[in-house]
Amino acid sequence: MPPTISLLTDFGLQDEFVGVMKGVIWGIAPDVHIADITHAVPPQNVLHGALVLGRAYRYFPAGSIHLAVVDPGVGTARRGIALRVGEHTFVGPDNGLFSVPLTSGAPVAAVSLDNPAYRLPTVSRSFHGRDVFAPAAAYLASGVALKELGEPVTAPVTLEIPRPLRVANVWKAQVFLVDGFGNLITNLTEVDLQGQTVAEVVCQGQVIQGVEVTFGSRRPGELLAMFDSSGTLSLCVVNGSAAERLDAGAGTPVEVRVA
Amino acid sequence: MPPTISLLTDFGLQDEFVGVMKGVIWGIAPDVHIADITHAVPPQNVLHGALVLGRAYRYFPAGSIHLAVVDPGVGTARRGIALRVGEHTFVGPDNGLFSVPLTSGAPVAAVSLDNPAYRLPTVSRSFHGRDVFAPAAAYLASGVALKELGEPVTAPVTLEIPRPLRVANVWKAQVFLVDGFGNLITNLTEVDLQGQTVAEVVCQGQVIQGVEVTFGSRRPGELLAMFDSSGTLSLCVVNGSAAERLDAGAGTPVEVRVA
Amino acid sequence: MPPTISLLTDFGLQDEFVGVMKGVIWGIAPDVHIADITHAVPPQNVLHGALVLGRAYRYFPAGSIHLAVVDPGVGTARRGIALRVGEHTFVGPDNGLFSVPLTSGAPVAAVSLDNPAYRLPTVSRSFHGRDVFAPAAAYLASGVALKELGEPVTAPVTLEIPRPLRVANVWKAQVFLVDGFGNLITNLTEVDLQGQTVAEVVCQGQVIQGVEVTFGSRRPGELLAMFDSSGTLSLCVVNGSAAERLDAGAGTPVEVRVA
Repeated sequence: MPPTISLLTDFGLQDEFVGVMKGVIWGIAPDVHIADITHAVPPQNVLHGALVLGRAYRYFPAGSIHLAVVDPGVGTARRGIALRVGEHTFVGPDNGLFSVPLTSGAPVAAVSLDNPAYRLPTVSRSFHGRDVFAPAAAYLASGVALKELGEPVTAPVTLEIPRPLRVANVWKAQVFLVDGFGNLITNLTEVDLQGQTVAEVVCQGQVIQGVEVTFGSRRPGELLAMFDSSGTLSLCVVNGSAAERLDAGAGTPVEVRVA
Repeated sequence: MPPTISLLTDFGLQDEFVGVMKGVIWGIAPDVHIADITHAVPPQNVLHGALVLGRAYRYFPAGSIHLAVVDPGVGTARRGIALRVGEHTFVGPDNGLFSVPLTSGAPVAAVSLDNPAYRLPTVSRSFHGRDVFAPAAAYLASGVALKELGEPVTAPVTLEIPRPLRVANVWKAQVFLVDGFGNLITNLTEVDLQGQTVAEVVCQGQVIQGVEVTFGSRRPGELLAMFDSSGTLSLCVVNGSAAERLDAGAGTPVEVRVA
Repeated sequence: MPPTISLLTDFGLQDEFVGVMKGVIWGIAPDVHIADITHAVPPQNVLHGALVLGRAYRYFPAGSIHLAVVDPGVGTARRGIALRVGEHTFVGPDNGLFSVPLTSGAPVAAVSLDNPAYRLPTVSRSFHGRDVFAPAAAYLASGVALKELGEPVTAPVTLEIPRPLRVANVWKAQVFLVDGFGNLITNLTEVDLQGQTVAEVVCQGQVIQGVEVTFGSRRPGELLAMFDSSGTLSLCVVNGSAAERLDAGAGTPVEVRVA
């Protein structure tokens, strides 16, 4: 079974960058499948990339390698890393992009991408995705052991991911991501709300009563709250955009009153 | 020969949704090729998705599986289906997305996606692309028989696709799709016009004389009518956008006077 | 090892065109990998396509086939070609799209895509990407010899690619490409500047002192000049867009004073 390499970057699709990474990968590991997760992470937004990767990686086969590049520090002293977390492997800059798997509780092994044997012969100052990370991912996919890539790393960088705060019967949460439909994905999950009943959800002064189980519970154009396909509380407009309706985006506060 | 799975959705490429579907597919059927047809169907526009899929699927190899998700009814009672139509297989919501193959005259076998053995262990209310359709397509690609997926369906949903109407020597047609170059693709085909000579084409008050065989027949910036690569009458501006020039889009009336 | 086919077009991703080409390729050559370089070349901009392809192809494995379609002359007398240049093969319209490899100094073999055995049975007037170029690339990938595709071509079309001009201690250069981050990529390379010291770079009246080795040398929001990952002089704003800052784009003059 050929391993799968997933790609997540902030490169966009208008330039040659993503295609070039695939060319480099297939030059080293001709058998792998490559799946784009997304290349539309807002430029240099490491937290956004970390959250999207955190929602995606578990759905890939065990043994997959996740190559992620949102890398404002490229060319500086920030190191490149490869991580094995449970059954998944991650390759990219050590800047917090892998915070979700790193804080998942699964066992972690990490190395710094020091070994020049597993890079392109010339390493540029501004495109480590091509010169360092794609080769590392491809060599791992072709059977090179993690420890061959470089020295062990004991404390990979993790970002402070804002957690919702419960004060009496109110959760102070926030919007984490806006998806392409305009759904507002918060940082509050079904697990946080276990055993509680949601009375109302308040965002930008709009009050939503309760939580629906599906879009189909309300009519087109209505605003509702529901748990999305990742078990996260989301604000949605049926066949419309909650982001537009509420003029909300990443960081907008959301209050949830529970009983 | 590995089978090919095509994907067509309204998910866009900014989120993890499409990549996650590929991860699920390769976890079940590691040998398949996956080709994106498009993920830019306008949100919830089932007719648009049906028309684009209808233009694309015949160019894929016999035995291909076409996984399409434009699914405003996700989480409601609408069922999921798998269809075999001639040499092609289709998987997605039973909402008319497969109207073109279903009305092509080829023999149809259809089942409802009932069998929990061919879904992910947990099925969400809002992302059947990941939880139901991707697994079904992948199991079919790996050799599971259509009838294993669920109970036979006798009347899959088909949309009313507007047909052009001939009144005396005038065809009353309309724009069906606008492509990325701004070409206006109508619902009138070479087959409809067989044995007739097009005298003029009228759209938004502009009159075009006759039909050209190629863009090269007119100079850059000129408006012309031609049959596109699918044999459909299209209005084009050489090296420009007919949609902008005529302020036209899906549904705009087009009249064709024939002799 | 399965060969890799790269794709570069101006088709965008909103229509079925790119997916259909992949379907055609896999119908003929089921083992190939297909990597999108980009489909966002500005419509009909052959020079832009040529420059992006020229930056990308060397990073693909030896033996790769590069299928490129930016084709304002489709349906006219312009011919289709397949080229072997060193270890890479190129397929597309003979309109200058392959100017960079053609002028690289590597040995060139070229044929016209005449042989109907290596096209789809019906060839449209407006989509040779599907009907002529995708089949040619796929047959080459599956082992058909270049000379089987058609008659030898002695002088494939090459574009006049503007070169920077040195007048005393000033290089008169220009912006060639704007990448998705808003970096301005000029036509002046490290090779042109070998043995010289850059004193200042002037663009749109803004003066930049010297050349940095990395983004990290300046603070977020600062404008700088650096050599990009292809060894080309680029103007960048750290974590921002130089194109917006300088209101510059393809063709904007850039002057470089050297010592």
